[in-house]
Amino acid sequence: MKSKLILTLFTVLALFSAGTAQDMNNVKYPEMQKISSRRKIVIPDIPGFVTLKCDFHMHTVFSDGIVWPTYRVDEAWTEGLDAIAITDHIEKQPSKEYISGDHNASYEIAYPQAIEKGIILIKAGEVTRTMPPGHLNALFLEDVNRLDVEDVTAALTEARKQGAFIIWNHPGWQAQQPDTCLWMPMHQSLFEQGLINGIEVFNEVEFYPVVLDWCINRKLTVISNSDIHDIISDAYYLETQPRPLTLVFAKEKSSNSIKEAMFEGRTLALFNNHVAGREDLLKELLTASLTIKLLGNAKDKNEKRYEIINNSAIEFKVENQKGDLLIIPGESTIISALNPKYYENSRIINLLTGSNSCLTTNLLYK
Amino acid sequence: MKSKLILTLFTVLALFSAGTAQDMNNVKYPEMQKISSRRKIVIPDIPGFVTLKCDFHMHTVFSDGIVWPTYRVDEAWTEGLDAIAITDHIEKQPSKEYISGDHNASYEIAYPQAIEKGIILIKAGEVTRTMPPGHLNALFLEDVNRLDVEDVTAALTEARKQGAFIIWNHPGWQAQQPDTCLWMPMHQSLFEQGLINGIEVFNEVEFYPVVLDWCINRKLTVISNSDIHDIISDAYYLETQPRPLTLVFAKEKSSNSIKEAMFEGRTLALFNNHVAGREDLLKELLTASLTIKLLGNAKDKNEKRYEIINNSAIEFKVENQKGDLLIIPGESTIISALNPKYYENSRIINLLTGSNSCLTTNLLYK
Amino acid sequence: MKSKLILTLFTVLALFSAGTAQDMNNVKYPEMQKISSRRKIVIPDIPGFVTLKCDFHMHTVFSDGIVWPTYRVDEAWTEGLDAIAITDHIEKQPSKEYISGDHNASYEIAYPQAIEKGIILIKAGEVTRTMPPGHLNALFLEDVNRLDVEDVTAALTEARKQGAFIIWNHPGWQAQQPDTCLWMPMHQSLFEQGLINGIEVFNEVEFYPVVLDWCINRKLTVISNSDIHDIISDAYYLETQPRPLTLVFAKEKSSNSIKEAMFEGRTLALFNNHVAGREDLLKELLTASLTIKLLGNAKDKNEKRYEIINNSAIEFKVENQKGDLLIIPGESTIISALNPKYYENSRIINLLTGSNSCLTTNLLYK
Amino acid sequence: MKSKLILTLFTVLALFSAGTAQDMNNVKYPEMQKISSRRKIVIPDIPGFVTLKCDFHMHTVFSDGIVWPTYRVDEAWTEGLDAIAITDHIEKQPSKEYISGDHNASYEIAYPQAIEKGIILIKAGEVTRTMPPGHLNALFLEDVNRLDVEDVTAALTEARKQGAFIIWNHPGWQAQQPDTCLWMPMHQSLFEQGLINGIEVFNEVEFYPVVLDWCINRKLTVISNSDIHDIISDAYYLETQPRPLTLVFAKEKSSNSIKEAMFEGRTLALFNNHVAGREDLLKELLTASLTIKLLGNAKDKNEKRYEIINNSAIEFKVENQKGDLLIIPGESTIISALNPKYYENSRIINLLTGSNSCLTTNLLYK
Repeated sequence: MKSKLILTLFTVLALFSAGTAQDMNNVKYPEMQKISSRRKIVIPDIPGFVTLKCDFHMHTVFSDGIVWPTYRVDEAWTEGLDAIAITDHIEKQPSKEYISGDHNASYEIAYPQAIEKGIILIKAGEVTRTMPPGHLNALFLEDVNRLDVEDVTAALTEARKQGAFIIWNHPGWQAQQPDTCLWMPMHQSLFEQGLINGIEVFNEVEFYPVVLDWCINRKLTVISNSDIHDIISDAYYLETQPRPLTLVFAKEKSSNSIKEAMFEGRTLALFNNHVAGREDLLKELLTASLTIKLLGNAKDKNEKRYEIINNSAIEFKVENQKGDLLIIPGESTIISALNPKYYENSRIINLLTGSNSCLTTNLLYK
Repeated sequence: MKSKLILTLFTVLALFSAGTAQDMNNVKYPEMQKISSRRKIVIPDIPGFVTLKCDFHMHTVFSDGIVWPTYRVDEAWTEGLDAIAITDHIEKQPSKEYISGDHNASYEIAYPQAIEKGIILIKAGEVTRTMPPGHLNALFLEDVNRLDVEDVTAALTEARKQGAFIIWNHPGWQAQQPDTCLWMPMHQSLFEQGLINGIEVFNEVEFYPVVLDWCINRKLTVISNSDIHDIISDAYYLETQPRPLTLVFAKEKSSNSIKEAMFEGRTLALFNNHVAGREDLLKELLTASLTIKLLGNAKDKNEKRYEIINNSAIEFKVENQKGDLLIIPGESTIISALNPKYYENSRIINLLTGSNSCLTTNLLYK
Repeated sequence: MKSKLILTLFTVLALFSAGTAQDMNNVKYPEMQKISSRRKIVIPDIPGFVTLKCDFHMHTVFSDGIVWPTYRVDEAWTEGLDAIAITDHIEKQPSKEYISGDHNASYEIAYPQAIEKGIILIKAGEVTRTMPPGHLNALFLEDVNRLDVEDVTAALTEARKQGAFIIWNHPGWQAQQPDTCLWMPMHQSLFEQGLINGIEVFNEVEFYPVVLDWCINRKLTVISNSDIHDIISDAYYLETQPRPLTLVFAKEKSSNSIKEAMFEGRTLALFNNHVAGREDLLKELLTASLTIKLLGNAKDKNEKRYEIINNSAIEFKVENQKGDLLIIPGESTIISALNPKYYENSRIINLLTGSNSCLTTNLLYK
Repeated sequence: MKSKLILTLFTVLALFSAGTAQDMNNVKYPEMQKISSRRKIVIPDIPGFVTLKCDFHMHTVFSDGIVWPTYRVDEAWTEGLDAIAITDHIEKQPSKEYISGDHNASYEIAYPQAIEKGIILIKAGEVTRTMPPGHLNALFLEDVNRLDVEDVTAALTEARKQGAFIIWNHPGWQAQQPDTCLWMPMHQSLFEQGLINGIEVFNEVEFYPVVLDWCINRKLTVISNSDIHDIISDAYYLETQPRPLTLVFAKEKSSNSIKEAMFEGRTLALFNNHVAGREDLLKELLTASLTIKLLGNAKDKNEKRYEIINNSAIEFKVENQKGDLLIIPGESTIISALNPKYYENSRIINLLTGSNSCLTTNLLYK
C-alpha cells in the first residue's frame, strides 16, 4: 500500500506545497466540470440519403419556455442533433411584462450560435389556436411576424406563401381533445388547401396511433417532436435514449434538403425506442442497422448460431413465428442460436407501420 | 423462452389491441419522462445545528444567465439544496434590448416558486466592479435597486444599512487578478468598515487557498458558490457529487437562522469533495459522518479489524503516520485491518483548515 | 485558461518530475480501481422488527455456478444484503471432473469470509428432482451430506429433522412445468407433512402470481430469490434496483431470528420494484416508507398541496379512484397538488396482496 | 393526467387480468435482466494493421482466481476484447484441496466458450518465482505442464522451445521490489538468452515508468495487463474506460498475427486513459483518432475556430506551448477557438514515449 501515498502527495502538493505563489492563489479542478462536447446519436444513413436527427418543436423565454434561445442550439449540439426549429407561440407570451422583441427575435438571437455550432436552425413559429384546428407549426418561414393575424386560415396561407411546411401539433392532446383524437372538418379543409403537410404522431411523451394511420393513408409526413419548454436533460433520460426525434432522410445536410425531404414524406418518427412511419423507410433503416453473420451449427440441430451486430442505437425487438421475443440491444453484438424457419416472418414490434401493424421481414436471410 | 412473449404482448397491446378508442388516440409513456423529484444531499447535522446546503451566487436572464428565475428554484430543489440567492449583476445586463424589469425582478419572479417548493430564497444582487474591489454579493437585501449607485462604497454601505451580509466573490479570478490573489488596501478599508463579511474560497471550479487563510485569520466567513450562469446539471457531474456549496450550520431551517449563522462564521466550503474552514466545524462534521466499530483482531497482530460507516456523501481521504492512504467512500461501509498506532495522528487530507494544513485527528479512537 | 496548466503540471509531475526514484518505479492510480465498499439498500424497519434483505438461493462452482463460494459473500456484502444461503445442488455437479469436496464444502469455504464481513451465512442445499416435486431448498441445515439419499421424501424428512426451513423453488419454471404451475398431489402430501414451509413466488426474472395466492391461502411463507449462477452485477441492473430479495422481518439481526420469522411467515417478496405478500406487512412497510405533509391549498380549490417523502428505495405507484397514476420515486421527495377525496381508496399497484389484488389504503390520511 | 392511467392498466393487466391461465403461472420481466451483449471498445485501426484489444494476464479457480475459466471468455467478450490469455500460476494453487486438473485444464475448459464467442484464447501459464526473476507469463504454449520444473531458466527455455512469447510481469510490484524497480543481473541474463520478450509497464493499477524506458531502449515489447483475480467489472469502472489493455497492431485478427506483432514490438500499453510505447505507433494512433476541421475565423484575430472529432474512446490531453490544457473527450466532438501558432509543438501529455517524455506534434496541421 505504501506507494498509494505517492498519488496522494501530488494531490496534497496541489494544495500545500506552494513554493510558487500561483498555487496559493488559484487551483483549478477541471475534472469537476463537464466539458461541452457533442456526442453522436448512432443511427445509420440509408442508401442515397443521410439520416438527420431533427426536433421541430421547442420554446424559449420568448413564449412560455424557460431558457434563452441560444441554449436550444447548445443543448441540440451537445445531444447530437442536426437541425432544430424554435417554435415560440405567436399568440402566447406569458412573460410579456419582462420580455420584448417581435416574433423573429428568438430566431435572430439563436442564429449566430447555430452558425458557430453547425446546427441547422429553421425559422419557425407556432400558430396557437383553440381546437379546431389547435396548434400548428410553420417551418422554413421568412418572417414570423406576418403570421400574427386574427384568422387562422389567413395565418397559415401566409405561411404557405412564404414556402412553409406546416405541421399539425399534438392532435390528441387531451387539453384540446379530452377523450378523442379527431380529424375534424376544419382539418379536412386545411388539408385540401395544402395547409397541413405533416402531423405529429408523437409529442413529448404521447403517441397518437390513429394519427400514424392518417399519415400513411393521406400521404402526410410523420413527425415526432419534444415540444420542450424547460431543459431536455431534465425531461428525458438522455443516457438511455435521445429525445423524441424526427429522422429526416435528406439528400444532404442542409436546410433545403430537409425541406425537400419533408415535402416528399421521407421521415420517420423516433420515440421511446419505437420508430413509426412508411414501411419502405423502416425496412431500409433496419437493413442499414443490422449485420447478421451465420456462425455455424448449434447443439439443437434445427438451430444455427448467428452473430447479430446492431450498428444503431435503436434496440430492435423481434417476435418470431412461435411468439418468442429476441431483443437486439443498441450499439451491441449478440450471439444467438436461432431456428431460421421461425424467423421467416419476423415481426419487428417496435418498428410501427400503422396503429395496428409493424414491420414484418425475413430477419435472418435479409 | 416462451413466456417472454407475454410481456411483449402487453406492450404490443398498448399499441394494437385497441378495442377502446382511447388507445388509438393517445398512448403515454410515463417511463420515458424524468419525474421531477428531490434527492437528498446526505450530509449529517452537527450537535446543536442543522446543516443547510446553500448556493449564494447564480444568474438568470435578468443579467447574463440563460434561464428564467423560477428555474433556479427548481434545479436547487431537485438537487437537494435548502437555500439559494439569485445574484444578478446590478451593473451588467447584456440582453437589455429584450429584457426589462428592475433589479428586484428576478427575485419577485422566483419567489412564488420558492414558496411552492420550500426553498429559502434570499433577496440579493451582485455589485459588479473592476478590481479593486471586484465583484461582491449582497445577501438579505430589502431593495436591490437602492444599490444601483455610482460609488461602490456607497452601494455597499446601503447594502449594510439594509442588513446585508456581503461576500467578496472569486478574489483570485484571473480576469481581474491575472497572476495573483491580493488583499488590496481597498479591501482592507471595506473590511474595516464591516463591508466584507465573507469571501468565496471557492467559485465555479476554482479554489483560492490563500483566501482560506485570510478567512481563518480575519474571522471572515468561508463561502463556496457555483456562480452558475447556465444549467447546473450541464456544468457539474451531479451523479457524482453536488455543485460547490456553502454548508451553513443554522439553529433552524430559516432565512434568519442562515443570516445569523453566516455572521457568526458557522459555515464550511464544500467543493470537489473537499471541505474547507474552521477546524472545530470540520471536526464536528467528521465525527457526525463516521461510525467506527472495532470488529476484532486481524491476522497481523499489530492490526485490528474495523468497520467504518460513512454516513455522509463526502469521501474522506485519511493519511496515516506511515503515509498510507485510506479512502472512506461516501454513503458506504468499509471493513479494514488497520494498525491503530499509525492512526493516532491521522491527516484527513480533504478537510482543509488552511492553505497549508488539514484536519489532524485520532481517527480510530474518536 | 492559464491556470488550468497548474493541475496539468501536477499530473505531469507524477510521471516526469521524479527527483525521488520511487516515482519512476511505481505510480499507482487508486482512482481507477473500485473500492470494495458496502452500499445500503434503503428499506425501513417496521415497528417491532428489523427488515433484513436476504437471498436464499444461489450457486457456486461446487454445483453449476461459476464462482468460488467466498465471492457469494463478497457480492452480497457489497450490494447491502444481510443474509444469504448458498444452495448448491445436491444431485448435480457438472464439474465433478475438476471439483471435489462434499456437500458442506461451499459453506465451509465461505464461512470465514461471512464472519469477516458480518454476513449471515445459512447452511443449505438444493434438493434437485424432476417434477414433482421439482427443486426444494433446505435452509438452516446441520449437515447437507445427510440429504444425499435416493428418496426425495426421505431427504426432506432428514432436512426437517435437522430443523430445516424448506422452500419449493420456482414452481412455475417452464423446464419443469411447461404450460402451467400446478400444485400436485405430491406437493399436497409434502405440505401436510410439514415438508414445504415456503414457496418462491419469484425466481430470477419470473413471477408466479398463482403461487402468491397459494401462500396467502395456505399460510406458507413467500420467498423471492435470485437463483444466481453467474455474477449478480452481470445479471441485474444494480444501479437501478437490488436483486430479487426476500425481506425478512426479524426480531434482531441473527440467523435464529431469521429462522423464527420465516416459520412465522413474516416475509415479503421484493422483485422488480414490486412487493408481494401479507397485507398487514405491506401496510406496515408503506407506512414506514412514506412521510406525507399537507403543505396548504392549491390553485384548484378541490386540491391540496402535499409533500410526499419516500424513505425507501421502492418506487410506489398509486392509482387513485379516478384511475390517475401517481408515481412516488424511491429515496426522493415529490410535491403534488392532489384531491384527497380521490385518494381515500388508493390502490398501490406495485404492492401485491394476491394474484388479483393489491394494497388499498387511504393514502393521504394515513 | 387522465391518460396516464392507460399504461398503468396494461401493467396491471399483466398481473390481474388473467383470462389466460398462463398469466397466473409465470410472468417474466425481461427488462430487469441484463442482456448478454458485446459492446465495442472504440479505438481505430492504423494504416496496415487492425488494432486488437488484448489482456494477457488473468487467473481462475485453477490458481488463485475466483471464477470458472469460461467466465474469463464471457467477460472479455462482453467488454469488447479480441484476445486473452488465461495465465494461472504454475507453482501456486491455494485451493488444491478442492480443485484437480493439470496446468492445461483452465485453457481446455475455456476453449469451447472462446470458439463460441469468437474470442482468441492463447494458451499460457504464469511462471511464479521469488525475485529475481519474479513472475513471468509464457504465451502461445503447446503444453503448460512441461514448464512445471524446478529451475526457472529451464522452465523458460522450455517455453521458448514451444515458441512462447515471454513477459516479465509487474517488475515494480512492491511485494517483490519494495522500494525499487531494478533490472537485475538475472534479468540481463534471461534477456540475453531471449527469455524475456516483453515487460508489463502496467499491471492492475500500477505504472512502472522506468520500465517504459527499458522497453524503448532494449526494443522490448510494452505490455499492459489487468492480472485480474476476481471480476473485471468489480475491479474497474468499465462505464468510464476499459480495463488495462495491450493494444496489438496485427496484420489480421488471429492468434498467429498477434504473436507476430508482439515479437515485432507492435504494441501499445493502454491504462487509465494513458497510452505508452513507441513514438511511431502513438503518432499513428493519434492521427487515426482525430479529425480536425478548420471552421473559420474567431473573434480574437490570432485564433481560428476548429472542430475536433475524436473517433476513439481515449480522451486526449493537449498542452500547447503556452502551457494551456486542451481536453478532447473520447467519442465526442469539440469546437474551440485556438491560436495555431501555440499548437505547433503540442505535447499530448497522456501519450507517453518514455518515463520522461510524451508525444509532441503539430496538432492543428496534422
